Amino acid sequence: MGHVHFVGAGPGNPELLTLRAARLLNEADTVLYDALVGPEILKMIRPGARRISVGKRAGCHSMGQSEINRRLVSEARRGGRVIRLKGGDPAIFGRLEEEVAALSAHGIGYDICPGITAASAAAASAGVPLTLRGKVRGVRFLTTASCPEEPNDTAWGRLAGGEETLAFYMARSALVRIARRLAAAGMSSSMPVLIVEAVSMPQERIRAATLAEVGAGALTADPAQPVLLMIGHALGAYADRKTSFTRVTALSHCA
Amino acid sequence: MGHVHFVGAGPGNPELLTLRAARLLNEADTVLYDALVGPEILKMIRPGARRISVGKRAGCHSMGQSEINRRLVSEARRGGRVIRLKGGDPAIFGRLEEEVAALSAHGIGYDICPGITAASAAAASAGVPLTLRGKVRGVRFLTTASCPEEPNDTAWGRLAGGEETLAFYMARSALVRIARRLAAAGMSSSMPVLIVEAVSMPQERIRAATLAEVGAGALTADPAQPVLLMIGHALGAYADRKTSFTRVTALSHCA
Repeated sequence: MGHVHFVGAGPGNPELLTLRAARLLNEADTVLYDALVGPEILKMIRPGARRISVGKRAGCHSMGQSEINRRLVSEARRGGRVIRLKGGDPAIFGRLEEEVAALSAHGIGYDICPGITAASAAAASAGVPLTLRGKVRGVRFLTTASCPEEPNDTAWGRLAGGEETLAFYMARSALVRIARRLAAAGMSSSMPVLIVEAVSMPQERIRAATLAEVGAGALTADPAQPVLLMIGHALGAYADRKTSFTRVTALSHCA
Repeated sequence: MGHVHFVGAGPGNPELLTLRAARLLNEADTVLYDALVGPEILKMIRPGARRISVGKRAGCHSMGQSEINRRLVSEARRGGRVIRLKGGDPAIFGRLEEEVAALSAHGIGYDICPGITAASAAAASAGVPLTLRGKVRGVRFLTTASCPEEPNDTAWGRLAGGEETLAFYMARSALVRIARRLAAAGMSSSMPVLIVEAVSMPQERIRAATLAEVGAGALTADPAQPVLLMIGHALGAYADRKTSFTRVTALSHCA
């Protein structure tokens, strides 16, 4: 009946794969992978395995979700070790449910290997924590889809309190809008912001700003890279620590 | 002047270490590690490296934070490859800021290797996503310290909306209190809950319940294991999927 391993590829740097993910890729017969999974990780797939790109990248034409689901089912039915390789962590903003539902409807089993999610990797790359004891008591992972269009919606007020670090995934086109709405909802104009592009990759770029600067449109993001927008008191340490912190983004090849 | 690698050990299963973390442990001269980092991961430290347990485990007597900071500084000054090995992801509920501040005060540099955080591993172990497109639009990581004592505090209302998956770390003693306060703040009594003990380890235990059942005290947690309390619509799939989902918790030894 087939079986599918959902595997988190992490943020992009192959060294941030888990040992389990690396082992599964090394044992794969078929790998269906997202466009954001980079070439260095694809090199870790067992030679001889079938590699199937299934999209999808914001703004680019690629396979639709229902077609991905169909393809996943048909590949699982062929048998062998089938891996569905997803960027980041499969459980977070990965449409995992839709693919699992398709498999389950056909009686196909699955398991999941977690991955490093972008916000963890971004905090590591920036040398800052996401929580501060007694001050920043939690972390929220969001997308722009989490953000209501209405600027006066109470949901913005719930985000603006500053008691949690906010990490907006896939935020490239929404930087100014998010910053302005948080400011309008009462967040301090001096709240630290990090804009992190291509986290963990050689082309990684981290820029620090305040909420007011982002709202004023002072920072734009590279249209070719995935963008994470991080907001919160805990990120303020980035600017203070540049002398002692060492960024680690070099790619190393894995056996 | 020394240098410290902060390394995330992940939730406990050595296969969930990143490749970078495994490499760093294999190159270490000195490793300062938390009590929750298990023996299977400690076996991955380079033979001959100094291993220093620095606590800390809820409810047990162990080294205080200021003593950990002092020890970290003194080990870094001795030189060599010094690793500060922390459970989960160093950026999330890991008191990273306090240790980094101590290093920075002495001019000691550092870098950070991210780790799989417990909520990602728990979702993977349970075979469920943390977000659902169009329905569960985000994820929040919290501790009981995030939860005000006052049952009518508006903070509870902000948590009770059901639009995000809530993951409460270190939740063993607060299961009933959290569930009751969320219910009092308006969360549905049928909201799916997972209580996950010892995530990713051979003794892992996952139990599904409703918010009402947890609030009624129907489930208690093993005092010897770390406990994650997860609440939200996305977790409801766990009960439906037991036939197709394969749990993966076996420990495999790593070279």
